[in-house]
Amino acid sequence: MDKYNLVFNSSSPKYLQLSEHIKGLITSGKLTNHYKLPSIRKLASHLKVSTSTVVQCYNNLEQDGFLYKKTGGGTYVIGDNNITSLKEEFSDISLENSVPFDLASATPSPVFFPVKTFKELINQVLDRDGGYAFNYQEEGGYLPLRQSLSSMLSNYKIYATSQEISIITGGQQGIDIVATALLEKDDYVIIESPSYPGAVASFNSRGANIIEVPIRKSGIDLIQLEKTLAQYNPKLMYLMPDFQSPTGYRYDLNCRKKVVELANKYNTFIVEDDHFSDLNYTSTPLPPLKSLDNKDKVIFIKSFSKVFMPGLRLALMLPPSSLYRQLNDVKKHTDISTSGLVQRAFDLFLREGLWEEHIKSTKHIYARRFSTALKMLERTLPWEVPFTHPSGGLCIWVTLPQQYDSQTLYFEALKKGVAILPGNRFYLNNNQHNSFRLSFTSVTEQEIEKGTKVLGNTVKQFLHEYRNLHHIKHEKDKFF
Amino acid sequence: MDKYNLVFNSSSPKYLQLSEHIKGLITSGKLTNHYKLPSIRKLASHLKVSTSTVVQCYNNLEQDGFLYKKTGGGTYVIGDNNITSLKEEFSDISLENSVPFDLASATPSPVFFPVKTFKELINQVLDRDGGYAFNYQEEGGYLPLRQSLSSMLSNYKIYATSQEISIITGGQQGIDIVATALLEKDDYVIIESPSYPGAVASFNSRGANIIEVPIRKSGIDLIQLEKTLAQYNPKLMYLMPDFQSPTGYRYDLNCRKKVVELANKYNTFIVEDDHFSDLNYTSTPLPPLKSLDNKDKVIFIKSFSKVFMPGLRLALMLPPSSLYRQLNDVKKHTDISTSGLVQRAFDLFLREGLWEEHIKSTKHIYARRFSTALKMLERTLPWEVPFTHPSGGLCIWVTLPQQYDSQTLYFEALKKGVAILPGNRFYLNNNQHNSFRLSFTSVTEQEIEKGTKVLGNTVKQFLHEYRNLHHIKHEKDKFF
Ligand SMILES: Cc1ncc(COP(=O)(O)O)c(C=O)c1O
Ligand SMILES: Cc1ncc(COP(=O)(O)O)c(C=O)c1O
Repeated sequence: MDKYNLVFNSSSPKYLQLSEHIKGLITSGKLTNHYKLPSIRKLASHLKVSTSTVVQCYNNLEQDGFLYKKTGGGTYVIGDNNITSLKEEFSDISLENSVPFDLASATPSPVFFPVKTFKELINQVLDRDGGYAFNYQEEGGYLPLRQSLSSMLSNYKIYATSQEISIITGGQQGIDIVATALLEKDDYVIIESPSYPGAVASFNSRGANIIEVPIRKSGIDLIQLEKTLAQYNPKLMYLMPDFQSPTGYRYDLNCRKKVVELANKYNTFIVEDDHFSDLNYTSTPLPPLKSLDNKDKVIFIKSFSKVFMPGLRLALMLPPSSLYRQLNDVKKHTDISTSGLVQRAFDLFLREGLWEEHIKSTKHIYARRFSTALKMLERTLPWEVPFTHPSGGLCIWVTLPQQYDSQTLYFEALKKGVAILPGNRFYLNNNQHNSFRLSFTSVTEQEIEKGTKVLGNTVKQFLHEYRNLHHIKHEKDKFF
Repeated sequence: MDKYNLVFNSSSPKYLQLSEHIKGLITSGKLTNHYKLPSIRKLASHLKVSTSTVVQCYNNLEQDGFLYKKTGGGTYVIGDNNITSLKEEFSDISLENSVPFDLASATPSPVFFPVKTFKELINQVLDRDGGYAFNYQEEGGYLPLRQSLSSMLSNYKIYATSQEISIITGGQQGIDIVATALLEKDDYVIIESPSYPGAVASFNSRGANIIEVPIRKSGIDLIQLEKTLAQYNPKLMYLMPDFQSPTGYRYDLNCRKKVVELANKYNTFIVEDDHFSDLNYTSTPLPPLKSLDNKDKVIFIKSFSKVFMPGLRLALMLPPSSLYRQLNDVKKHTDISTSGLVQRAFDLFLREGLWEEHIKSTKHIYARRFSTALKMLERTLPWEVPFTHPSGGLCIWVTLPQQYDSQTLYFEALKKGVAILPGNRFYLNNNQHNSFRLSFTSVTEQEIEKGTKVLGNTVKQFLHEYRNLHHIKHEKDKFF
């Protein structure tokens, strides 16, 4: 109930103040769609106001389209669709009407999707295959696509037959399948810290114990990692060696080799989540963990969401052969099979050599945005606010001084029309956190220039005000 | 290892006899795709043959395309794609090259899919929405589709707002989401007996205890059901009130009411799996459990696979509002969101009133096949082999006399070019079972006529031979 707490002033009726407060909770995503509000009696007694204040407030919010009532079933939130970020826990959904400067979403911008080409391919598939494109697909996925992917993978030094590849409904599904197949309650799982909340949600749903190991510029902290492996004997580690989300860090070659060695030594599986490796702007590609894996420890998942189109819901999974059957059985009870139409159209896309072209042009666009963003941030952010300088991917990770809460900054920035992604969601303990993520997929270069300026000013002002406000506490902190 | 046992005769080389035996295991689905075969040494010692016999056998099978070898990694099965049924555990995948008379698959035939129309709608969507059709969709699903579905549901006497409906990637995903959200290890779940193996797979993956309650012509056995509810206090019951799979039985009105009452009385949820109710050929529609549910106990799942096109991977879920958030959170970590393109095209299909038309024409086709099939079975099956006479759906359930194994009949029928679906897979204890399922979606009326004749003769011969073979045992059985 604490989130409803507010200090009433005498400037306006209490029900209006309460309305504004609850509106704020909704637009900031603290109260999400379909959330059930406390009963009138309960809220009134909690806030020490009359029930009629709460009644008026709820009626008011209902009229404004923030709440709906169910006959006999209480009052519920209608989530705010106009604000991109906080309420979406991990899917980075970029909505059509969003804030002026959306530096939060890492979903590729729909304007760059090769819609015309893909439309043609869909039509070709339907003319060629008719209703068979709308049937269940064979186990493992549409065979010709698996063959195309097998040859695509050799470009990454991964050599796999079509029989070893599974086609799945997005990378998230791959993570969820692995969790379902391999984890039982109280099993241990290692993740990078910070990490991707979608994976955490899957591991949590199996009742696993998740352990965070810090990631640094050159990759996961190997000393911590080995200590954790020795201590907890985890079933798997979930890693993003290329342009990690949210930090943008990339494992160096040494780290890659060591991580695979450690997986062998401690007999644990690695889930390698590759969703960004193709968006390599300035560095030499490094071998995926899967290509270094000679003991069949790596479950390789390659999503086509971030480099192609998320709505396809398409990814590939390449597990060790010892896990193939088990993971496919789980895939089957998860959603039987992935859309045949999409698999067939994507197969043509690959066969016609359009993939390489697409990657090239996408990289070109994002590389420019990225370098503009990095240049601008150098200029606009104060020196006490460092940020990562990734050579690829879609994310930059910005760190405020220790005691500052990026969620508070989020609200400040939002008022000025800039959306950022507060860092707490990328940690298990998602209390306040001083880092935040920026991304530049939904904004043009001009918007990046303007948006980063606004952000820079907001950060400066935020640091300044916060310092004044917390002066005493701040001073006091120095003694500890 | 026991399945490899065989008694060698002297008529042909041992490696050939072993090859034939293993081929049989593969084509019958007892060894499935990617199954790892025992090592040469192990199998040789188990069968008491020389290792060179096994080497020759494996080479032979590899040449014939039944096996593949991995360097240093053993020998694996290449599943047989030409035979529809046994190896597919539950997804009813109907393959393009199948047996002459496929009476096993209950997947609608691709030739009846409205491909042309749907292709147009896809093009319309892409012209209208461009890349947005390939983006992640909003939580709960594409809002206009939810609105269309809300109005569709009122035809079933289900009144729900778009805010209460979730769009999911097929009915199987709905079952899996419910299992993940509601079940913990050792929780109890009630299913009908026989039931749908895909649901069982999901419940098993959560470590649930599954209890079977028999289904009869008028619905689930209410006395047994109440006893089981009282004894086990289950978290949920998974029910198919309309043209149950595999029996074709339909709950009568009384049974529907009682089941909902019992859910209230014993405070348990019902998963109502509606995948066939639209295929009602001759009876008056009965209200879905969801429409009788005034205590918010029913999670309604409506799949569009069987009445429309399975490869769309599209279904709706309408949970009690108390579960909405929880189930949507699981949906999110399962696959983030369902394909936006498919949702948008299906929305247009509904908005243009094409759904009713489609159902009408589909029903027309299947009703004729069904009545032909029933008529033919009356004629061709011996009197000791009763079968259900459903008024809708796609399945007929045939029962051999008690001691006969439908799996043995399956192999006999397959030799004659007829595929049936042995009953054991629809029970928890999937040892031998005397019932089997027939379906008529992948065969023309002529094929039904011919196929049922062949089947009838096979059954007669099977009963006859079996009786001779088991004469003594049979006689003996009488004393027990
Ligand atoms: C790090 C990471 N991995 C995996 C995914 C899942 O993406 P998809 O299921 O669309 O492939 C996401 C999506 O946001 C992500 O950020
Ligand atoms: C009884 C039953 N329910 C649900 C499903 C799942 O179908 P889908 O996921 O294609 O909607 C099937 C598929 O075979 C089925 O037979």
